Amino acid sequence: MKKIVLIRHGQSIYNLENRFTGWTDVDLSENGYQEAKKAAAILKKHDYNFDIAFTSVLKRAIKTLHIILEDLDHLWIPEHKTWHLNERFYGALQGLNKEETAKKYGDEQVHKWRRDPDEEPPQLTKEDERYPGNDLRYQNLTPEQLPLSENLADTIARVLPYWNESIVPAISKNEKVIIAAHGNSLRALIKYLDQLSNEEVTAVEIPTGIPLVYELDDDLKKIRHYYLE
Amino acid sequence: MKKIVLIRHGQSIYNLENRFTGWTDVDLSENGYQEAKKAAAILKKHDYNFDIAFTSVLKRAIKTLHIILEDLDHLWIPEHKTWHLNERFYGALQGLNKEETAKKYGDEQVHKWRRDPDEEPPQLTKEDERYPGNDLRYQNLTPEQLPLSENLADTIARVLPYWNESIVPAISKNEKVIIAAHGNSLRALIKYLDQLSNEEVTAVEIPTGIPLVYELDDDLKKIRHYYLE
Repeated sequence: MKKIVLIRHGQSIYNLENRFTGWTDVDLSENGYQEAKKAAAILKKHDYNFDIAFTSVLKRAIKTLHIILEDLDHLWIPEHKTWHLNERFYGALQGLNKEETAKKYGDEQVHKWRRDPDEEPPQLTKEDERYPGNDLRYQNLTPEQLPLSENLADTIARVLPYWNESIVPAISKNEKVIIAAHGNSLRALIKYLDQLSNEEVTAVEIPTGIPLVYELDDDLKKIRHYYLE
Repeated sequence: MKKIVLIRHGQSIYNLENRFTGWTDVDLSENGYQEAKKAAAILKKHDYNFDIAFTSVLKRAIKTLHIILEDLDHLWIPEHKTWHLNERFYGALQGLNKEETAKKYGDEQVHKWRRDPDEEPPQLTKEDERYPGNDLRYQNLTPEQLPLSENLADTIARVLPYWNESIVPAISKNEKVIIAAHGNSLRALIKYLDQLSNEEVTAVEIPTGIPLVYELDDDLKKIRHYYLE
């Protein structure tokens, strides 16, 4: 039986300011830092340790991972950072206040952008400073890979190939895996592991900073999943 | 012209306590943390950034690297952690107080262990809890790779293959490289880059937390080197 641990990063500055975040590389808030410390303490209490770590290229996830690995005295394990595990790209909404956006576009539209798996937020343009093509860390992405906006289906479509090509081989070698990522990139994994529809997974709420364990059989089919506390 | 940056980790708890460290995985002291912050500020002042990072599997080097990458807002770059870049393995001296060891073995012998490139400190046994074969992080090393003690020549012999196989390819691709490591693993690189004898490189003192830049030509021959301040 194989176990993997998923962890959603702690609260970020934008969460705190009630802004759409997406690929904006905002830091953890003090509360988010404490959430990561608490996640580490829970993992430690249950004697978890890891052989390999995967995270996004966004500091709120990377720092959550580093805090956990440091407190587990496992800073030395290999860690892989990939844009594939980034949060959903929120297009032209990134950085905007959620309340102001709701006033401008209406609650119903904002709810759709947030919760309808097929609804894509407004695209930004390639001239926009928020366009990932203007960010060094995405310089090796193809034009097709660089998003102008993403719905949940788009996010899933770039998370799953990474899961299959990079994470599955590690699990298959019986390496103990931790994945520190974001609400929607984790939804993509949960959809796959729990065999949910896009609609079903959209309704799944993943709390920040609570380790989520998936037990898998030798064919990597889910046996069960549970939060640690 | 290619540039690489070498950085020796800041002061550790054992430096502070005047103990032989080697592969003992001790943390940075508060002073060591501040040295890493200062290194980051110097690199920032000179507009350095990096595409890829290499470090050891020891937390004093890993944390020095993380502090620097965080302050340069480059936490997202790939980082590779390897035992090849570990400090010299100090055998049965690891953890011992340097002053007490000098009283027991004599100043001259301790000086030899520290400064004679061919002199190996007393070996520890495989039953010793300090033997790396008892540490998870070294589980994939062959018995020949697991040291009982190392002289400087031994350290050089395991640093250079990693340089050639993993670091040189990155430099050759024009990736901007930072290496956060230890006094003796950095000596191994300096010996190679400056074409020094073991005796000459033993005399080289590398300050902690000061970025050391090597400028290399297209054949990776040294043009010049200098510390940033």
